Amino acid sequence: MLEVHLASKRVSVRRAPVPRVPRGYARIRMLVAGICSTDLELQRGYYGFSGTPGHEFAGEVVAVNGSTEEESAWLGQRVAGEINLACGRCEWCSRGLGRHCPHRTVLGIVEHPGAFREFLTLPIRNLHRIPDGLPDERAVFIEPVAAACEILDQVKIKMDDRVAVLGDGKLGLLVAQVLAAHGAQVHLYGRHRDKMRLVEGPGITTEAVPKKLPERKWPMVVDATGSAEGLRSAVRMCVPRGIVVMKSTVHGLVPIDTAPAIVNEITLIGSRCGRFEPAIRLLSSGRVRVDAFISEEYTLDRAAHAFRRAATTGVLKVLLRPPR
Amino acid sequence: MLEVHLASKRVSVRRAPVPRVPRGYARIRMLVAGICSTDLELQRGYYGFSGTPGHEFAGEVVAVNGSTEEESAWLGQRVAGEINLACGRCEWCSRGLGRHCPHRTVLGIVEHPGAFREFLTLPIRNLHRIPDGLPDERAVFIEPVAAACEILDQVKIKMDDRVAVLGDGKLGLLVAQVLAAHGAQVHLYGRHRDKMRLVEGPGITTEAVPKKLPERKWPMVVDATGSAEGLRSAVRMCVPRGIVVMKSTVHGLVPIDTAPAIVNEITLIGSRCGRFEPAIRLLSSGRVRVDAFISEEYTLDRAAHAFRRAATTGVLKVLLRPPR
Repeated sequence: MLEVHLASKRVSVRRAPVPRVPRGYARIRMLVAGICSTDLELQRGYYGFSGTPGHEFAGEVVAVNGSTEEESAWLGQRVAGEINLACGRCEWCSRGLGRHCPHRTVLGIVEHPGAFREFLTLPIRNLHRIPDGLPDERAVFIEPVAAACEILDQVKIKMDDRVAVLGDGKLGLLVAQVLAAHGAQVHLYGRHRDKMRLVEGPGITTEAVPKKLPERKWPMVVDATGSAEGLRSAVRMCVPRGIVVMKSTVHGLVPIDTAPAIVNEITLIGSRCGRFEPAIRLLSSGRVRVDAFISEEYTLDRAAHAFRRAATTGVLKVLLRPPR
Repeated sequence: MLEVHLASKRVSVRRAPVPRVPRGYARIRMLVAGICSTDLELQRGYYGFSGTPGHEFAGEVVAVNGSTEEESAWLGQRVAGEINLACGRCEWCSRGLGRHCPHRTVLGIVEHPGAFREFLTLPIRNLHRIPDGLPDERAVFIEPVAAACEILDQVKIKMDDRVAVLGDGKLGLLVAQVLAAHGAQVHLYGRHRDKMRLVEGPGITTEAVPKKLPERKWPMVVDATGSAEGLRSAVRMCVPRGIVVMKSTVHGLVPIDTAPAIVNEITLIGSRCGRFEPAIRLLSSGRVRVDAFISEEYTLDRAAHAFRRAATTGVLKVLLRPPR
């Protein structure tokens, strides 16, 4: 089978044996996979990653190593997969927080080969059925939508609560839609009129980032800029006792002015992966719409080109498909 | 009367007229006042401050400008005073959060002369009676103990919850005692055995900061170090989904590694001034003990020397008293 290989900042494609299926695992034929900003960061070398990246995918279960009927029932199912492979035995796992299991590996990120190949493996317990009405090209967004939904599990957001979202990249656009679907009044600050237009509508107003950002204005600000500047702005835009959600990682040391956060008693919340269930519901019901986010798609053999395109300004989601 | 004057990093003492008392205000004779780290920061020039500093005090009401019986009843009372002078009319004030009023001045910090003088003024609504059993030298700690108590208003801490406190300065020692009085199991990390010994006892264990701090260990960490390093350590010592309370300000830009905060979904909470009521109760009942924190005391005319002493390593609280 073909797989993408990433090493020393270089994306290549190579032949590899179909992966074997450990006990309790499934082998999944990749139907479509998405290139995420994290994949581009892996390429930039932030984590010393080497291997097959990819953690956003829709696939079909083609083999199962399990003896129960329940396990066998996954055969032939279209699935998305929770990306954290937890140990299932530690304190975190027993609390249902396998996403924080200290022994975890992570699909395409930490010590488990990713989805940018023809066949991947995941523990059966990581799988989620994709509803019939949800096509592959939308299902591939389940993982990033789940990350946006994580905010709802961390912060109590009530109907008509005012929330500012900073950043009109893929993540910012998904966060805006998820929060609006939950009933919040979202105001999206971004730099690209064309991107922001994709999500304008009921519950979402947009604004080109002004020279001088408003201070002490928003009870809640989600930083999805991926920049140090964005986080600093988020703190300053937040009212006293307000909440700043840190949704995008900035690498290395970020210089933060902690004084306004302390004087105004701001709460900053780090936010990462989320549960798949609400994401599947939001995508299935059409309350989160992603079709317009798909910029381009390529077969696996053109992965190097696909990575270059995904890193290009103005390009949103780039999809990969198995070779024809 | 005598008052301390701070300008261009220089502490001097000068004669000034007794301050007039605006409508709704009280004139208070200072009985004892405490030099706080914030006063030393004002001296270092962080806020471009010029004027009379001082916001920790115990005093006696000697004049009241008010017509109601309730107002007159303050005459002769021993009082402590809430340091934020709020407008009383804005949205924040109406929510009982005058401490965040955008129009506020702050006693001895922002545009309202402080307590390092023979007579000071405050709005009557800022006053709290000092119970008879609480001597002046303890009452002067009401304000910093209130700041420590603020944590209890921001975070739900249950009986026997494990909390690490970083820093054995005055604030760290008070925070440790307040949280222990609330039932938490406090572990205090500091660099000074002699200081930490002052608070060791039921509910408080102490430890000299080890070369390698433990990672992912504490469900809650309070940073009271006043250093950039302290905040970084606090984030790393915190378990996933844990809470870091930012209790001490670090000036200028603090380089923070946001990645662990996001990956581990840490909540960082800025924490500043608190309500006086719980602080008065804790000091009156003896559950927070401060006598051993008083290093030295001087009359107002020796304020310059007192500031130098307060800035000396190993010196805890330095008190000021009116001239004899």
